[in-house]
Amino acid sequence: MKTASICTIGDEILIGQIVDTNSSHIARELNLLGIQVKYMTSIGDDRSRILSELGNCLDHTDIVIVTGGLGPTKDDITKDALRELSGAKGYRESAEQMAHIQRILGARGIPMIDTNRAQALVPDTCTVIPNTLGTAPCMAFYGLGAQGTSALYSLPGVPFEALGLLPAVMDDIRRHFSLESITHHTVVTFGIPESTLAKTIEPWEDALPGNIHLAYLPNPTIGVRLRLTQLGGQADFSPYLAQLQAILGDAIYGEGDDTLQVVIGRKLRAAGKTLALAESCTGGHLSELITSVPGCSDYYKGAVTSYSNEVKMKVLGVREETLLQFGAVSEACVREMAAGVLRALDTDYAVATSGIAGPGGGSPEKPVGTAWLAAAKKQPDGSVNVATECVRFASSRAVNIERFASHALDLLRRNL
Amino acid sequence: MKTASICTIGDEILIGQIVDTNSSHIARELNLLGIQVKYMTSIGDDRSRILSELGNCLDHTDIVIVTGGLGPTKDDITKDALRELSGAKGYRESAEQMAHIQRILGARGIPMIDTNRAQALVPDTCTVIPNTLGTAPCMAFYGLGAQGTSALYSLPGVPFEALGLLPAVMDDIRRHFSLESITHHTVVTFGIPESTLAKTIEPWEDALPGNIHLAYLPNPTIGVRLRLTQLGGQADFSPYLAQLQAILGDAIYGEGDDTLQVVIGRKLRAAGKTLALAESCTGGHLSELITSVPGCSDYYKGAVTSYSNEVKMKVLGVREETLLQFGAVSEACVREMAAGVLRALDTDYAVATSGIAGPGGGSPEKPVGTAWLAAAKKQPDGSVNVATECVRFASSRAVNIERFASHALDLLRRNL
Repeated sequence: MKTASICTIGDEILIGQIVDTNSSHIARELNLLGIQVKYMTSIGDDRSRILSELGNCLDHTDIVIVTGGLGPTKDDITKDALRELSGAKGYRESAEQMAHIQRILGARGIPMIDTNRAQALVPDTCTVIPNTLGTAPCMAFYGLGAQGTSALYSLPGVPFEALGLLPAVMDDIRRHFSLESITHHTVVTFGIPESTLAKTIEPWEDALPGNIHLAYLPNPTIGVRLRLTQLGGQADFSPYLAQLQAILGDAIYGEGDDTLQVVIGRKLRAAGKTLALAESCTGGHLSELITSVPGCSDYYKGAVTSYSNEVKMKVLGVREETLLQFGAVSEACVREMAAGVLRALDTDYAVATSGIAGPGGGSPEKPVGTAWLAAAKKQPDGSVNVATECVRFASSRAVNIERFASHALDLLRRNL
Repeated sequence: MKTASICTIGDEILIGQIVDTNSSHIARELNLLGIQVKYMTSIGDDRSRILSELGNCLDHTDIVIVTGGLGPTKDDITKDALRELSGAKGYRESAEQMAHIQRILGARGIPMIDTNRAQALVPDTCTVIPNTLGTAPCMAFYGLGAQGTSALYSLPGVPFEALGLLPAVMDDIRRHFSLESITHHTVVTFGIPESTLAKTIEPWEDALPGNIHLAYLPNPTIGVRLRLTQLGGQADFSPYLAQLQAILGDAIYGEGDDTLQVVIGRKLRAAGKTLALAESCTGGHLSELITSVPGCSDYYKGAVTSYSNEVKMKVLGVREETLLQFGAVSEACVREMAAGVLRALDTDYAVATSGIAGPGGGSPEKPVGTAWLAAAKKQPDGSVNVATECVRFASSRAVNIERFASHALDLLRRNL
């Protein structure tokens, strides 16, 4: 099994100014190729530390992926450290990257200065993988480390540039190391906690052939993803997937990179149906999830965030008696919110949330972390059918809101 | 200057399943105490790697902070590695942590089982800092490393538990290492890019006394924070802050941990005024930012996310002629959206956004990344005054949405 190290370079990480999200993405991609990540490390803008850490990683792993330290400013010293590490005599200009620099600056109407030009210079030992999204190129170095067989890839630190380069880097790794084929299939579930899920499918898991490996990947917004992996050979997961479907039923909602909002969008688009939201405790987060899917305007008409009772009554038509008798966090209120926004925005489906995210508020009967959720559906005769659910969590405000929203999406998904 | 290492433990980080956000928070807190973070590393659930990495960190830095690897499951082997590393003979039960475990499980109605009980067991060499938010305690070990003077703190990996423990851990570090006093003052700015800001305040920065250090902390949602730091002695930043205020004027909007949504909330509450939002391209993100502030229901009435022209007309009262003549992404449309939601939700202020977040859509005149923003204010005579702004960015969908939202908040802030 090939091994890898992931290193980020830059003082901004060591002083806690930014969160490193690149390493997680890179680790996932390497893992999907069957490569084991052994080291993950952050290094400051310090030449000797960069040289010693990268040297150590190259001696102990086959692949080293470096992000950051490639900006045009003076404290970015990574490129020259890589020149030394790779035994390069000097620099050459990458004509291909220079063309991208000219195009990018031109589109923004920015004149080219020396610092931009310098970004196209690379150590003469490296192979350039052009960066079409930014001015700093990706550099690949081969034949390094104690064995003389390790490879190093240097990527810019800007997340959307680094992520944009990953497919090309992974292709290069696959080719350069002639990796054995690896096949994955991921099934996405929602609503069953990881530990319960593990117990439920234990007999199925135990009966899997020895060359098929199962991984659990839990995520609060997406649910628990179950990933089957087979190294080498022709993979046919279909009999095992059919068995899993029979066990888990509609707890399975998608595959691969599917999320609740993507699956909901796909179903609504296919059926030519529309959606509206009425949010109280989720405060816009549900709408943000729906609109994170490009093209959602095909089925999403909009939302009313009713943070006050006045808006619940005035815009959504919730009755004052309902609020007085049951309160805003009640089944009766979310029913009226969901039916109200469906009618006000004239859609086929609607979702509503009302709860107590905390940290303040709550009562013994309705503690912080309680929410009522509703999914409304317009019937052929014009009447509205509403499904409801009460959930209770015990986390921070932000995490409670995240869970209220994902459970509301799941309630809709199960009622589409 | 004291030095530190931050280590996360857990295979879930090395396979890219989760993003490590704890290390960034911890690094910032250490930085605020004047401690230099030298190493930041992730280690898998591998006993020998944990022992060698932590041993190395203890030999080379004064403070080692470890997160993760403390759950009740079998692959969490951190605690026994710490026992060995600290030379402990065995375990003792922490009565204080046991009380928290009983309270937490009791509140959730979960019966205590052996794995819960085991979480109160700690190596007999450690000092417990009780974790009131979860079942795994924080453990402090002193007198370790090559010098026999280094300290190690082990925290649970769950982010809200780790963050909840940080104040107590930082207090313990300050006391244990008798740290020199350090004073910070942070000024928060919005609307001036970092490079322009640096040029604008260069003469002021150059005239600062040698014992006062300035740091730039840019953030896409918050703006650029300027942090003044003085090590030791009595700090009086007031003359320098007054000079900075004179140079930057209303680009300065707050101090410390202030964000646009916090400052807006504070001003609205103090004035007894209310706010509504009409979102198109930001799709709920603006509302999410406003509702991320606990207690926002004092001034925030709600929002209409009008993702379709139909909702813009029907709920917000945007005129059909406006949409036909200028389109939805236009000054005229956001003016009518802002005034419309202010009237529909009967508030004193309103913000509206309409733009093209991408990746699809756009035209030569209105490319992807363009948005019109509006801030409306009810006048004493009942009329509505609207300020508008057009912004243009060239990033991914998610980053464009983030920038549209923060600029819309800033437009409101400057018009409160």
